[in-house]
Amino acid sequence: MSAVRVHNMGISLDGYATGEGQSLDEPFGHAGTRLLDWMIDGTRFGRRIHGESGGLRTVDDAYVEQWQPGIGVEIMGRNKFAPHRGPWTDHEWRGWWGDEPPFGTPVVVLTHHPRPSIEFANGTVFHFLDASPADALAAARQFAAERDDLGDDVRIGGGPTTVREFLAADLIDHLHLAVVPIVLGRGERLWDGLEAIEDRFHVESVSSPSGVVHVTFTREA
Amino acid sequence: MSAVRVHNMGISLDGYATGEGQSLDEPFGHAGTRLLDWMIDGTRFGRRIHGESGGLRTVDDAYVEQWQPGIGVEIMGRNKFAPHRGPWTDHEWRGWWGDEPPFGTPVVVLTHHPRPSIEFANGTVFHFLDASPADALAAARQFAAERDDLGDDVRIGGGPTTVREFLAADLIDHLHLAVVPIVLGRGERLWDGLEAIEDRFHVESVSSPSGVVHVTFTREA
Repeated sequence: MSAVRVHNMGISLDGYATGEGQSLDEPFGHAGTRLLDWMIDGTRFGRRIHGESGGLRTVDDAYVEQWQPGIGVEIMGRNKFAPHRGPWTDHEWRGWWGDEPPFGTPVVVLTHHPRPSIEFANGTVFHFLDASPADALAAARQFAAERDDLGDDVRIGGGPTTVREFLAADLIDHLHLAVVPIVLGRGERLWDGLEAIEDRFHVESVSSPSGVVHVTFTREA
Repeated sequence: MSAVRVHNMGISLDGYATGEGQSLDEPFGHAGTRLLDWMIDGTRFGRRIHGESGGLRTVDDAYVEQWQPGIGVEIMGRNKFAPHRGPWTDHEWRGWWGDEPPFGTPVVVLTHHPRPSIEFANGTVFHFLDASPADALAAARQFAAERDDLGDDVRIGGGPTTVREFLAADLIDHLHLAVVPIVLGRGERLWDGLEAIEDRFHVESVSSPSGVVHVTFTREA
């Protein structure tokens, strides 16, 4: 069975998973990197992103490294791909990541403005779909099935609006949050409209010496 | 120096510290006891409230037992004293707790409708004040100073609106929350208007085997 998973999503104590005012210079708005520093500055995964190596193997690493194994495709909201809104005008834009997007899989970008797919040498292919969560999931699984070298699971990559929509549609089997002990005050809330969603999951909370708390909502899939 | 402290405040993942729809039968609205079960069902303190004794000494107990030592007075919002709104009509109402309110100290009840104080045999005295947080704090410290048998510290007893107002006025030195892994969806939010309040505090998060996460905002006082 193919599970649908969310990993390494930073969230503030007041429930914001990204800040207000996304722009080209501030992908996370006024939050800056505060919801991600635990991962970017503090883990082996973060070092690899910066082209470095080494690092300790902390509880944060144990969670972070679950990000990729078994995954065959990612689904993301448009804002994770680009800061632009409305019809595409800059067709040179190929995502925040330059020539080596750190996915290596097909990626479904949800947008009301479909455009041709974009393929990279490292196996990342962005497909742009205007679709409901359920239809996007079916399409994503199809993309994954075409790749023998990848797993069957689907990662919902964010942002918070996309994750919330998939949770509301009861399409997520594993949700890993890192609660960062800050009060962000503004931005996109994850939990709106999800009252009592814990009833569908086994929930665990594990505090890390780094200061974050890993919260998982998980179920068999 | 007299510190101002909050203890054992249950809060949901989405930041609600009490539910919607308080009534005589439902002091915490639709939340029921879900934000307090970790304490009421799971600690020695909870057993004592139920007239029982014994119990383990868990991390939850370690936090809970800090509730009383050093405290000379409590300040609470009116809703913690009574479900009634507007001018007092039921003067027989002496609080949710019957003849033995579990305080044993002066208690300042914030209300726009002052009324005569109510005294109990166990040392609890409710005083009803229409005052700003700073003025209420000054009055509370005066009440505490009149009692040689008590400590100097002030406990802000809730509910969330009262705690939020004291946080906004920068009058709180120690805030202990127990994050309960539920999405409450509705009720009173603690964090509104408190963006970046963590800058004033040392923050710790400690997960308990019971499932809650103890989060403390603390500073020297």
